[in-house]
Amino acid sequence: MFGLHGIELAFFVLEIIGVVAFAMAGALRAVERDMDLFGMAVLAVITALGGGIIRDLLAQRFPASLSHPVYFIFALLGALLAVPAIGFITRHPSWFKATDALGLAVFSVLGANVALAQGLNIISVLLFGLLTGIGGGVVRDVLANDVPLVLRQEIYGIASLTGIAVQYVLVHLHVPLIPAAVAGAVVIFLVRLAAIRWNWNLPRVRR
Amino acid sequence: MFGLHGIELAFFVLEIIGVVAFAMAGALRAVERDMDLFGMAVLAVITALGGGIIRDLLAQRFPASLSHPVYFIFALLGALLAVPAIGFITRHPSWFKATDALGLAVFSVLGANVALAQGLNIISVLLFGLLTGIGGGVVRDVLANDVPLVLRQEIYGIASLTGIAVQYVLVHLHVPLIPAAVAGAVVIFLVRLAAIRWNWNLPRVRR
Amino acid sequence: MFGLHGIELAFFVLEIIGVVAFAMAGALRAVERDMDLFGMAVLAVITALGGGIIRDLLAQRFPASLSHPVYFIFALLGALLAVPAIGFITRHPSWFKATDALGLAVFSVLGANVALAQGLNIISVLLFGLLTGIGGGVVRDVLANDVPLVLRQEIYGIASLTGIAVQYVLVHLHVPLIPAAVAGAVVIFLVRLAAIRWNWNLPRVRR
Repeated sequence: MFGLHGIELAFFVLEIIGVVAFAMAGALRAVERDMDLFGMAVLAVITALGGGIIRDLLAQRFPASLSHPVYFIFALLGALLAVPAIGFITRHPSWFKATDALGLAVFSVLGANVALAQGLNIISVLLFGLLTGIGGGVVRDVLANDVPLVLRQEIYGIASLTGIAVQYVLVHLHVPLIPAAVAGAVVIFLVRLAAIRWNWNLPRVRR
Repeated sequence: MFGLHGIELAFFVLEIIGVVAFAMAGALRAVERDMDLFGMAVLAVITALGGGIIRDLLAQRFPASLSHPVYFIFALLGALLAVPAIGFITRHPSWFKATDALGLAVFSVLGANVALAQGLNIISVLLFGLLTGIGGGVVRDVLANDVPLVLRQEIYGIASLTGIAVQYVLVHLHVPLIPAAVAGAVVIFLVRLAAIRWNWNLPRVRR
Repeated sequence: MFGLHGIELAFFVLEIIGVVAFAMAGALRAVERDMDLFGMAVLAVITALGGGIIRDLLAQRFPASLSHPVYFIFALLGALLAVPAIGFITRHPSWFKATDALGLAVFSVLGANVALAQGLNIISVLLFGLLTGIGGGVVRDVLANDVPLVLRQEIYGIASLTGIAVQYVLVHLHVPLIPAAVAGAVVIFLVRLAAIRWNWNLPRVRR
């Protein structure tokens, strides 16, 4: 964890951004549901660490967030940051979605990167990235007893898949891992923001 | 994946049947819940791959569906097949349950087979098969914010356990793995269909 | 499993107590939700084995409850014990919470013990113990389509963390593993009972 250089450090910074963003989104959902302070902390931690734990379980390695306290500490920090932000967010509800979008972007490319490092094919990279990216938010919504955000509204998973595809293509064009991941994350974040801003929705099949 | 022979091929065909059946069941539930096209695809894929991923995580191996795109492709195909079937299914709701029953049958015997191959005892084989068989449907129902089907209605888990017991006995009578698994799956499917048809229910404990 | 001595036997007894307690809590919730006998058995087994399976998946080992039928048998026994207790529990609802508290206490210290045995730091020990301790109950509540108990009411997770902290300190003061775990479990159980009895709640953040 300490004494990191170059690539490891860059991915670590990305991961911390994702952890803080998802922790804020988890804490805000807890407040919406009238949970107490511990419920806020738990939902923040589970949302923030859920994506990474799912990724590590799938990749069959010990969950990083359970052996390095730094993730946990930043998740609690994210929950704390959410407290003063609550009044603001209540008046501007799209900020909740923007925070969630940042977590989605970061965890999607970090999950995809694990599959890329193992030399897996494009579909595996997409699935790995998508499950890691949406995992934290899905767990949060299930615990809050809601149908997960990803299943019911504006372009969400498609944003994740689009950015991962960009990341995949860049890596195969010999762009280094970090710029490729950052580019993918920026694409996901912008597509999701655009979808929220202009209310882009996929069509529905009528019963 | 390619260049399979005999046993591997037969189990692969069974698994694909389970994937397509559960994908259709997942997509139909998504339509019932007014999810969009992406929600349909996600619920179909998670339902179809959920059972297998749970089995592989329990058996401590890399989830097959994340390294071989073929499962993902057949899951999407199942979701597509569900679209033209929706009008028909709305008029004949027991067809949803029949599709789900086919997935239950196939994944139960595939999960049990993993435990059988490790020489585990009968109770472990039953638990492994049951968790694999009901895993996809439970994840689907939790994501759709329902109490899982398996917990609330006609003979469902009992059907799974009955077929797995038949499979276990056959294997211990030296019947080869494939016919034993197929026989177990047929038993599960028929017991579940009978339970749906004649509305067999277990008794309830009154409060 | 058999031929255990000393430490293994003591932890095994603790685990069985946790399994029976959580199985009763799962079966009682199933009755509240009008599930049938199979739903009762499944919810009891999943609640009872859920915490241990989560712990084993996180520790990357084969789930003990899937290779040793004894856990499954005691989980069913717990479900059976719940049946005659239902009338009594309906009149004294805090007994449901007391049973749940016993499971929380035992699984928290057993989960923490796995992290302690790996020499992990205090935050990892707390997280490991908390996830193991609340895992069974969270799965039970999600399957019953409720917001998990741990997120919404009296001191619950804090009780778990307090006892794990006591256990951690005792182990680092060279108290043997078993008495340290028992002391931690007693602290968790008493803090939780006190929280139920005097309705201790954490504050909430207002929207």
